[in-house]
Amino acid sequence: MVNKKDIKNQVIKAVETVKQTNPMAGSITNTVTINFVANAQLAVGGAAAMVYFPDEGEFLAKAGGATYINMGTIFPIYEQTLPHTAKVLHDTGKPWVLDPVAIGIGALRTQLLQQFKEYKPSVIRGNASEIIALAGLWGLDGGTGVSNVRGVDSTDSVIAAKAAAIELAKHTGGAVAVSGKTDLITDGSIIVFSYGGSDYMERITGSGCSLGGVVAVYATTASPFIAALTATAVYNLAGARAEDKANGPGSFQVQFLDELYKATAEDIANNPFEIEEV
Amino acid sequence: MVNKKDIKNQVIKAVETVKQTNPMAGSITNTVTINFVANAQLAVGGAAAMVYFPDEGEFLAKAGGATYINMGTIFPIYEQTLPHTAKVLHDTGKPWVLDPVAIGIGALRTQLLQQFKEYKPSVIRGNASEIIALAGLWGLDGGTGVSNVRGVDSTDSVIAAKAAAIELAKHTGGAVAVSGKTDLITDGSIIVFSYGGSDYMERITGSGCSLGGVVAVYATTASPFIAALTATAVYNLAGARAEDKANGPGSFQVQFLDELYKATAEDIANNPFEIEEV
Amino acid sequence: MVNKKDIKNQVIKAVETVKQTNPMAGSITNTVTINFVANAQLAVGGAAAMVYFPDEGEFLAKAGGATYINMGTIFPIYEQTLPHTAKVLHDTGKPWVLDPVAIGIGALRTQLLQQFKEYKPSVIRGNASEIIALAGLWGLDGGTGVSNVRGVDSTDSVIAAKAAAIELAKHTGGAVAVSGKTDLITDGSIIVFSYGGSDYMERITGSGCSLGGVVAVYATTASPFIAALTATAVYNLAGARAEDKANGPGSFQVQFLDELYKATAEDIANNPFEIEEV
Repeated sequence: MVNKKDIKNQVIKAVETVKQTNPMAGSITNTVTINFVANAQLAVGGAAAMVYFPDEGEFLAKAGGATYINMGTIFPIYEQTLPHTAKVLHDTGKPWVLDPVAIGIGALRTQLLQQFKEYKPSVIRGNASEIIALAGLWGLDGGTGVSNVRGVDSTDSVIAAKAAAIELAKHTGGAVAVSGKTDLITDGSIIVFSYGGSDYMERITGSGCSLGGVVAVYATTASPFIAALTATAVYNLAGARAEDKANGPGSFQVQFLDELYKATAEDIANNPFEIEEV
Repeated sequence: MVNKKDIKNQVIKAVETVKQTNPMAGSITNTVTINFVANAQLAVGGAAAMVYFPDEGEFLAKAGGATYINMGTIFPIYEQTLPHTAKVLHDTGKPWVLDPVAIGIGALRTQLLQQFKEYKPSVIRGNASEIIALAGLWGLDGGTGVSNVRGVDSTDSVIAAKAAAIELAKHTGGAVAVSGKTDLITDGSIIVFSYGGSDYMERITGSGCSLGGVVAVYATTASPFIAALTATAVYNLAGARAEDKANGPGSFQVQFLDELYKATAEDIANNPFEIEEV
Repeated sequence: MVNKKDIKNQVIKAVETVKQTNPMAGSITNTVTINFVANAQLAVGGAAAMVYFPDEGEFLAKAGGATYINMGTIFPIYEQTLPHTAKVLHDTGKPWVLDPVAIGIGALRTQLLQQFKEYKPSVIRGNASEIIALAGLWGLDGGTGVSNVRGVDSTDSVIAAKAAAIELAKHTGGAVAVSGKTDLITDGSIIVFSYGGSDYMERITGSGCSLGGVVAVYATTASPFIAALTATAVYNLAGARAEDKANGPGSFQVQFLDELYKATAEDIANNPFEIEEV
């Protein structure tokens, strides 16, 4: 039986370990938000490196404590890079985070996301429509064959993705984080709902992408579930604090990076959440 | 006979419709300013998605209300992606915005820009040198065979591009926006001069690129001419307001996104402009 | 015999010439920090343009006053683009700046960096581990065959890279800048240590990359050594000033661009430094 205090202690340990050890989490990520991903990873105490080639992906997979793969924009070389890197991560037992951005757009993205089923990402992070679509693509319960993703945006509620998230977590043996107004994190046996954040997070690009990168930073030291929860909690905390000081989406981004940097382990652990057994 | 009141009412309608409907305008755009493009599109109330592959371009062309193609940096895959996407946009009658950044640099960019003549972008946005060079490339009056573009910067005045802008608009049947100290927007029959902005817009990268992206957002709901004017007006308004609060180009960018977000339909419509018959 | 006053006068001249002439320094640089590179170049008074194709690289090499090549992320086309552009720069005697980011990761990066030995970059800028690794790759004294680069981060101290920096400068006939807590700049015969900066520069991405871009801006008008020193000095000055006004890495970036823009030639020249004969 999981209790809140155990979870909080694990969150505290994850945050403090990252601040003390500056772990590297390499990324293969989109060009739109790549700078924000790196800066968010650095703000919480991690180190970042981004690459495009298969042998570079393999290098970072082995050298880093965890790896982040984000599908927001893809290049032709990814046809080689992504399956190769994911296979290395899987075969070496290294944690990795998948963000299936824009699932449903284009043949190569679909092919690559299909291939990832076998390589079992430790954490899958997405909005509700992405999580439902990925479960559908992988033939799991809770998914749908037809994507409701609109470009890169969700048209489904977080709770509508609950079954898909659970099934994805059961398949991978890792965790799934569904981002939305209230965030849902599950390892397939328990669910945590994490509260906070800001409406500005929908009015800037990269809240989700950079959250995925920060999950990877915590996954260098914590379990997939705790990594996903810790990253979500610091995002909800920093988002709420940044909103109080912001006058629009420009100043929100600035304040958000400042608050990511300043958030203490205690504050992150105490960010409101609720536990539900599956 | 066009009058100011009619134009203002159309601007107000464009701004309010975007704020209410959150329309998506997909982009194929350069890596330098891609984040700024997306954040500017979101700040005015639109949604953004960026891609590189031909089938992704086709997907966004059909799924979005309008599409933005910016030539700032180009990849080898663009040889397939751009003509295919532009053809889909043309054949389906979807509005699209072309920003011919860096026209004159490299063989592929020239080839692609030449191909776009046939696919008639709904709005062409550029600085004076780019507009003159594009008219020249397309063999229209007002253009020159020799580009005066210096890298990505203009060496010509806006007024020097007037004839080229008119001829481009007549060719496409859409609108042309020439960005500079005073901005010129024309549909080939009337010209509007839009005032405001800030010298800081020359001291940051992406003022022009992100303006093109915002034109695409308004083109999802308004005519090419009104879309170009509305975007230009909100840029001139937000630029002037941001400058008042900025202490340099870093804080200007932050304030500028905040002001883009806060600008009301009334304020945008009332940003100073003058009408001239061609 | 070099003295401080001579150096200061050359720094003042470099800064003022850039502010007055707005020189263009084109770049082939990574996708992570490309926006920051351009904005930093603009903030000090230069102009920026970024490309990926061989003929575009050649165009900018010839059109710009100097060129910046940064290896942070590389694309397949770079196998053609980088040697071709570097050869044009070498053959036309145009100054260029190399930032060997992520040296040691992947076969193509290694191959390209090996090829650059022949084309002698005017300035090499990197962290200590990168400088040592590049000297090692080029078979020079002070280098090591085994890279201590961790992703994109240094694990060596600046002073440990002194011999490698000197040997690299002797090979190229240009200058080398080693970035760290105290920065080291050498032309192979004298060394300058430049002081200042901020710990926040390690907590944001792109301090080093954008410094390389700013070195290229000054290299359009000053010697490689003075260009490297001037850029390093304005970074140390603006970093220290920005830290005083920042509340975290988000606001630091904003303040840093503002301070880059506001720094006067006198202030930059007077930023603390010490000279040492080799």
